[in-house]
Amino acid sequence: MKIDVLSLFPEMFEGVFGSSILKKAAEKQAVSYNVTNFRDYADNKHSTVDDYPYGGGAGMVLKAQPIFDAVEALKGHVEQTPRVVLLCPQGERYTQRKAEEFAKEDHLIFICGHYEGYDERIREHIVTDEISIGDFVLTGGELGAMVIIDSVVRLLPGVLGNVDSPILDSYSSGLLEHPHYTRPADFRGMKVPDTLISGNHKKIDEWRMKESLRRTWNRRPDLLESYELSDVEKKLLSEIQKED
Amino acid sequence: MKIDVLSLFPEMFEGVFGSSILKKAAEKQAVSYNVTNFRDYADNKHSTVDDYPYGGGAGMVLKAQPIFDAVEALKGHVEQTPRVVLLCPQGERYTQRKAEEFAKEDHLIFICGHYEGYDERIREHIVTDEISIGDFVLTGGELGAMVIIDSVVRLLPGVLGNVDSPILDSYSSGLLEHPHYTRPADFRGMKVPDTLISGNHKKIDEWRMKESLRRTWNRRPDLLESYELSDVEKKLLSEIQKED
Repeated sequence: MKIDVLSLFPEMFEGVFGSSILKKAAEKQAVSYNVTNFRDYADNKHSTVDDYPYGGGAGMVLKAQPIFDAVEALKGHVEQTPRVVLLCPQGERYTQRKAEEFAKEDHLIFICGHYEGYDERIREHIVTDEISIGDFVLTGGELGAMVIIDSVVRLLPGVLGNVDSPILDSYSSGLLEHPHYTRPADFRGMKVPDTLISGNHKKIDEWRMKESLRRTWNRRPDLLESYELSDVEKKLLSEIQKED
Repeated sequence: MKIDVLSLFPEMFEGVFGSSILKKAAEKQAVSYNVTNFRDYADNKHSTVDDYPYGGGAGMVLKAQPIFDAVEALKGHVEQTPRVVLLCPQGERYTQRKAEEFAKEDHLIFICGHYEGYDERIREHIVTDEISIGDFVLTGGELGAMVIIDSVVRLLPGVLGNVDSPILDSYSSGLLEHPHYTRPADFRGMKVPDTLISGNHKKIDEWRMKESLRRTWNRRPDLLESYELSDVEKKLLSEIQKED
C-alpha cells in the first residue's frame, strides 16, 4: 500500500511513522509513506495556501489550487485511482469497518487542513471520503490521519506477527475484553482472582466470558443490541443482571 | 497545565508536541509536556514491563509494578491530585465535553499501553478515567493520548489567538459547518455560489444558516435531535426537506 499525506506540518508524522508497527510495516515493504507539504504546490509568489472566506467572517479557508495540484501530482505516479480522504468534523464517523475497507486499497491520499476551513471545491471534486474520527475539535487533520493510518496498516497482510497481536480486539468480537492479570499474583495486597490461577480451564473460560459480558453490559450496552448471545451467554448475562 | 505521558515509545510524541499549536502553547508556558518511558521504572534486571496472562491465552499483559511506580513518582512532583487517563478500547467514548472537563485540570497523566493488555489492578487502583477515542483498533494508546492532548490544550486560556481560531467549531454550535469558499471565484470553471459574492450580508447569513442545516440534516441528523431550532431555522429546514 502507498500512503500519501498532504500537510503543512510534515514533521508531525516523523515520530509516528518511525516507531513500532508503522515503522516495521514500512521495513517489511507492506506500506510506503510519503508526506507532502502542499505549500510547495502554491502557484503564487508568497506560497500562500489560504485566503479570506467569501461572504466575510473570521478564520481562513484553504485554497483549492495547491491541493488540486498536489493531489494530481501524487495521482500521476500510480495507475490505480486512489481514495482521497479529507479529515474534517463534518465527515462520516470513522469505525473499524472503514479501516477494513481502506485496508483493501492500493493507494490512500490524506488531506490534512490545519484550523482553516476547506474551499468547498476540494470536497466536491477531489475528495472521495470525508472522515471524522469523533465529536471533538482538533487543531488539524494530522492526528486523524495518523489514527486512520495506524488502524489500516496493522490490518495489512504480514504486518502483525503473533507477538504483536492484541489479546483480543474489542469491536472484532463484538464484546469488550474481560480483565487481564499477570504476575505477581499478589501485588501490594491486590490479588488476582482465584479462578485465574486455579488451572481449571473450563472455569477460566467461563470467568472470562462472564466478565467480558459484564464489562460490555456496564459500559457499552449498545454493543449487546447487535450481538447474538449464545445460550450460555444468555444465562451468564442474567446472572450479571442479578449481581450488579 | 502539566501533562505527563507514560509510553514505551516516547519518540512518537516529538513531532506532535514540537509543532503548531501544541508547540506554541508550551512556548507561552500554558502547558508543559513530559514523556516518561515506564520501562525505566521496571524493578527487574531485564527491565521487563509485560508478562503472560494468568489463565493462559495469546498476547501479553502490562505489569502493575512499573506503571504504579512511574505514576507515583510523577504525582510526587505536584501538590494537586492529577487525573490519570488510561487509553483503552473499553473506555468511555471521548467527546468535546470531556475535553472541556480535562481543560480545567492542573495535571493530567496519560498511560499508553501498546498492543498489550493492562493488568486489571492498574485500572482499579491508579486510573481515574478510562477513555476510548472511537470504535476502531489502534496499535497503542499513544495516538489517543495525542488526540486528547491536542483537543484539551487548544482550550487553555491564551493558547488560541484569533488567527488560529477555527471559522466555526462544529460540535460547539451544535450544527455542522456550512461550506466555505475563497478566491478565485472561478477555479477551472468551478464557481463560488453567487450569493456569497453578492455583498448582501442578510442573504449571505441566510445561505450559511441554510447550508449548515442542510449538511447537518444530510450527514448527522442525530445532532438535530438535541438542537433547539429557531423559527427561521425551522422554516429553512422544511425548505431543505422539500428540496433534497
